[in-house]
Amino acid sequence: MTSPILTSLTELHREVAQLADGRVATYIPELAKANPDWFGICLATPNGAVYEVGDTAIPFTIQSISKPFVYGIALEDNGRASVLEKVGVEPTGDAFNSISLEPGSGRPRNPMINAGAIATTGLVAAQSPTHRSQRIRETLGRYAGRELAFDEAVYESENETGHRNRAIGHMLRNFGILESDPTAVVETYFRQCSISVTCRDLAIMAATLANRGIHPVTGRQALRGEYVESVLSVMETCGMYDSAGRWVYEIGMPAKSGVAGGILAVLPGQVGIGVFSPPLDAQGNSVRGIRACRDLSRYLDLHLLNHPSTGRQAIRRRLAGSEFGSNRLRTTQERNLLRERGNALQLYQLQGHLSFSTSEVVIGDLLDRVPNLRHLIIDFKRVLSVEESACYLIHQLLLRFREQGITTLFTHSQHLPLLGRYLRRKFGDSIGLWFQIFPDNDRALEWCEDQLLQLDNVPQSTPDHITATEFELFHGLSETQIDVVQSKLRHRPFQKGETLVEIGALADELFLLEDGQVSVLLGGPSGAESRLATFSRGMHFGEMALLDRAPRSARVVADTDGACRILTRQDFEQLGREHPEALLGVLRNLCIGFSSRLRKANAERAALD
Amino acid sequence: MTSPILTSLTELHREVAQLADGRVATYIPELAKANPDWFGICLATPNGAVYEVGDTAIPFTIQSISKPFVYGIALEDNGRASVLEKVGVEPTGDAFNSISLEPGSGRPRNPMINAGAIATTGLVAAQSPTHRSQRIRETLGRYAGRELAFDEAVYESENETGHRNRAIGHMLRNFGILESDPTAVVETYFRQCSISVTCRDLAIMAATLANRGIHPVTGRQALRGEYVESVLSVMETCGMYDSAGRWVYEIGMPAKSGVAGGILAVLPGQVGIGVFSPPLDAQGNSVRGIRACRDLSRYLDLHLLNHPSTGRQAIRRRLAGSEFGSNRLRTTQERNLLRERGNALQLYQLQGHLSFSTSEVVIGDLLDRVPNLRHLIIDFKRVLSVEESACYLIHQLLLRFREQGITTLFTHSQHLPLLGRYLRRKFGDSIGLWFQIFPDNDRALEWCEDQLLQLDNVPQSTPDHITATEFELFHGLSETQIDVVQSKLRHRPFQKGETLVEIGALADELFLLEDGQVSVLLGGPSGAESRLATFSRGMHFGEMALLDRAPRSARVVADTDGACRILTRQDFEQLGREHPEALLGVLRNLCIGFSSRLRKANAERAALD
Repeated sequence: MTSPILTSLTELHREVAQLADGRVATYIPELAKANPDWFGICLATPNGAVYEVGDTAIPFTIQSISKPFVYGIALEDNGRASVLEKVGVEPTGDAFNSISLEPGSGRPRNPMINAGAIATTGLVAAQSPTHRSQRIRETLGRYAGRELAFDEAVYESENETGHRNRAIGHMLRNFGILESDPTAVVETYFRQCSISVTCRDLAIMAATLANRGIHPVTGRQALRGEYVESVLSVMETCGMYDSAGRWVYEIGMPAKSGVAGGILAVLPGQVGIGVFSPPLDAQGNSVRGIRACRDLSRYLDLHLLNHPSTGRQAIRRRLAGSEFGSNRLRTTQERNLLRERGNALQLYQLQGHLSFSTSEVVIGDLLDRVPNLRHLIIDFKRVLSVEESACYLIHQLLLRFREQGITTLFTHSQHLPLLGRYLRRKFGDSIGLWFQIFPDNDRALEWCEDQLLQLDNVPQSTPDHITATEFELFHGLSETQIDVVQSKLRHRPFQKGETLVEIGALADELFLLEDGQVSVLLGGPSGAESRLATFSRGMHFGEMALLDRAPRSARVVADTDGACRILTRQDFEQLGREHPEALLGVLRNLCIGFSSRLRKANAERAALD
Repeated sequence: MTSPILTSLTELHREVAQLADGRVATYIPELAKANPDWFGICLATPNGAVYEVGDTAIPFTIQSISKPFVYGIALEDNGRASVLEKVGVEPTGDAFNSISLEPGSGRPRNPMINAGAIATTGLVAAQSPTHRSQRIRETLGRYAGRELAFDEAVYESENETGHRNRAIGHMLRNFGILESDPTAVVETYFRQCSISVTCRDLAIMAATLANRGIHPVTGRQALRGEYVESVLSVMETCGMYDSAGRWVYEIGMPAKSGVAGGILAVLPGQVGIGVFSPPLDAQGNSVRGIRACRDLSRYLDLHLLNHPSTGRQAIRRRLAGSEFGSNRLRTTQERNLLRERGNALQLYQLQGHLSFSTSEVVIGDLLDRVPNLRHLIIDFKRVLSVEESACYLIHQLLLRFREQGITTLFTHSQHLPLLGRYLRRKFGDSIGLWFQIFPDNDRALEWCEDQLLQLDNVPQSTPDHITATEFELFHGLSETQIDVVQSKLRHRPFQKGETLVEIGALADELFLLEDGQVSVLLGGPSGAESRLATFSRGMHFGEMALLDRAPRSARVVADTDGACRILTRQDFEQLGREHPEALLGVLRNLCIGFSSRLRKANAERAALD
């Protein structure tokens, strides 16, 4: 099935292809050979999806579209302040080949005009001119996700005729903006302009900028994240030469065009666009390229300043301990206490990108709950990234919470190294005092529940020897009945880590837990096991498979050393024949246990919805 | 507990307050009376949160910050094209009071310089100059969420001394840019500049722009959404006079300053900022205001071009019919079939804002599944808004899906009127053929399951008279045992809509469904009831409360006319005494039923996680 996105691109391509205005650039003789009918449009997303129509595989030279990428290298090599000393960031209102040096300093007004671009090329660190060209070619290849080559014919052609750019080079040397041989720098500039790309390459390079400098497919970093906004800024205000205001107003995406007919546009975080069509307008921009960008912006709502508000999206779900619990099975008394006190325990599942504005929503929501809060679990599983500003806010929150006696637990936070580094830097060796890290919500909930229960001194440890009436399965049975059932039980000690029940095994045993603790584990899709339930002494397990005779659906593993008593199916059936009233009591208790677990499951499912 | 956001603002305020540069404006005599120490910072979010520090309640005149708001009125009154004929959108590189008319046409370069602003004021539709001033004052009040007043003293002062602006007015009249008496328009311009605001007002007005023109608290629309990007565009490129490039590069938020010392900055979708401090730099911008904006941008990561990628956030959850089902209880045969065929049924829960780039992710994901897809449920419950581009993509998808024989169901879509309007416009009267609307996922799932089951001609209707062995409760019992139990049952017919079990009632009856269908309903937090389960003939309900003697936890309502047979607790207990082997069979069947429901609940909870 064709994607509707591709269909809409195809329609747009057909419509814009009818534009016959503009002329192919001739000032570099090689460029004049281009076919004016060539026309390609390509969209690429930060997730790696690519949509392309028309001539998206024809190679052409990148020309001025190289400028923002080389500016990125200069920023990485020298830092923002040093680069600003040599090249400004103000739009000129002049044409692309204007010299536009600031009176006095000779500083070019911005890196998108030729003078600024040549100065920028001179800022790329290198041992030799060849090394400099190679570094530029390799870096642009990292954006494109493939090795790029120089088009030697275009390079030679431009090198022979580029007198104006040579003049600019000497002017820059005169003002000390270039500190070495201007001839070599200008030649490197010609080389960078002669890098051969396709329309598809442009879209992917744009998507890499949209994805904070990281290639959507290879995952390689082409530009440090902190400089992406600077590169996009100069594209936004100076990328389209003398119509920056109109471009922002109508199209609203940072963009750059080249005289070979390419245009590259970026909607940060969302999409990268490449268009290729050689005929140019009077300003040197591709006629069809500009029209395609304008239509895309309008039909796909791509204007940078057209942003819906963040909303409360950062909070995926909020659960209170009164409505949701760990998978540790609790006694009736414990369950009632947790229902009563559970509001002091809140679980926040966050999602998406934690920026200032999304964190603000989370923090506002949390602060409303502080008066009743004792334990807070923050689940970062669905958080995609954390900005430094969000780290700051989380740090401040942890400081305040500890002061108020609120304990904070993080779960699923290991994929956010920036957050970890930030908090280690702030807290140092005492980091463990400020928050705790748990592998999953279930264990974190259990820990908090234990804390809440200890508040009332519910005994957590029990005497050494279990009495028969402690078994839930024997509630309400007479002493004689209990004796009858007990006579059929087999003793089975176990060691910590031992598997008591295997998935898929045929089920013919019911377990009564005499001592220790066991967990029922279910394999997750990723291979990691999650806990379905934890049983402690007096409880029973294994009854489901015994009754419906289906193979075991989960694994049971001992969390501690301990022992259980086992009732086999054979004995179970025999009990029914010999002492039906004893089995009646047992079945009734099984039903009560089922009923209570089903009530919990239903209530929690409602909370999850 | 103080919000960490307020703490960080307070620190920033303390630091920036130390800046003592700049001079209070004197060219309007009234402004010279301002105290240079006044300094306030306020942040407001599209969700209505406000953080303020310092002198945020001192009134001052809005001055040039009125320009973007009046530009918005002109756009609404005349449309974008007509306004562009009279006022351009290019930055000038000149000072705020420069005349900057285009040679020949006399069109001011942009609406943020005085000439452009006066021309813009002339474009506000009105029956009289007074009416025009009132419209402007009222509209700005809608942004602020309170009625604003003119500061008569400042107005008089400016009116007496504003010769340069009067000159501009006459120049504009000369070129035909102003079409009526320039004196009245210039006086209205002085009036709009004299509107009295506070720093807090500025932040809220900015938040209204950040929230697509809708006031965060009152919910009133101050500017039509389609024009917000245009207003922000002129602020972005022309708002800070002759340093637009540097402003975008360093701060990256559309902004506007006024000579009374105010600055307003907007990060679309995220935050509105107001700063007030009277001392100005040489360009006429508040010294502390600029510094505060720069620090806020840096510390709170507010640069417009610094956007994380959209990611897969739009898909909150995807569930297949094989792992998740409606709450209609199915027979074992039906359950097995659904487990087998369920992948043909997919439920997509979407969330957030559906823009081009977020929908692209959803569509890409869906298309991957098309080969196996027969029924698609799209749950819009958590979708905050739908852009026109997303409507287009959904429409295209529905066209293709119907061609492929895939049925599409929408749930929770009623809060998205734009989507409904778009699809009604495209499909007209045949809209019902393209997709169906269901009130909730449960009902939609049930409908799709019924379709999937009919594929194999599983009988949906049953013969008139139920036989005893059809009751799940009697499976495996001997005829004698069945007769014994049957002799205790009381017949109970019911009518569609009748409540069979009330929440909170004491439980002492078990129901066997002989004919018809009943649903278990649970009250949701919003008062709406959700369905916990639906039973059909042969099934039993009411056993949980009978066993554990807790009051009924849900309501049971008849979906159709029908009848059931009732076993009271008394008879249940008597059965145990008189015919223990019959009750054993019954209890065993209860256990098997519980076990199967618990397995479903556990599997679905795993799917939900």
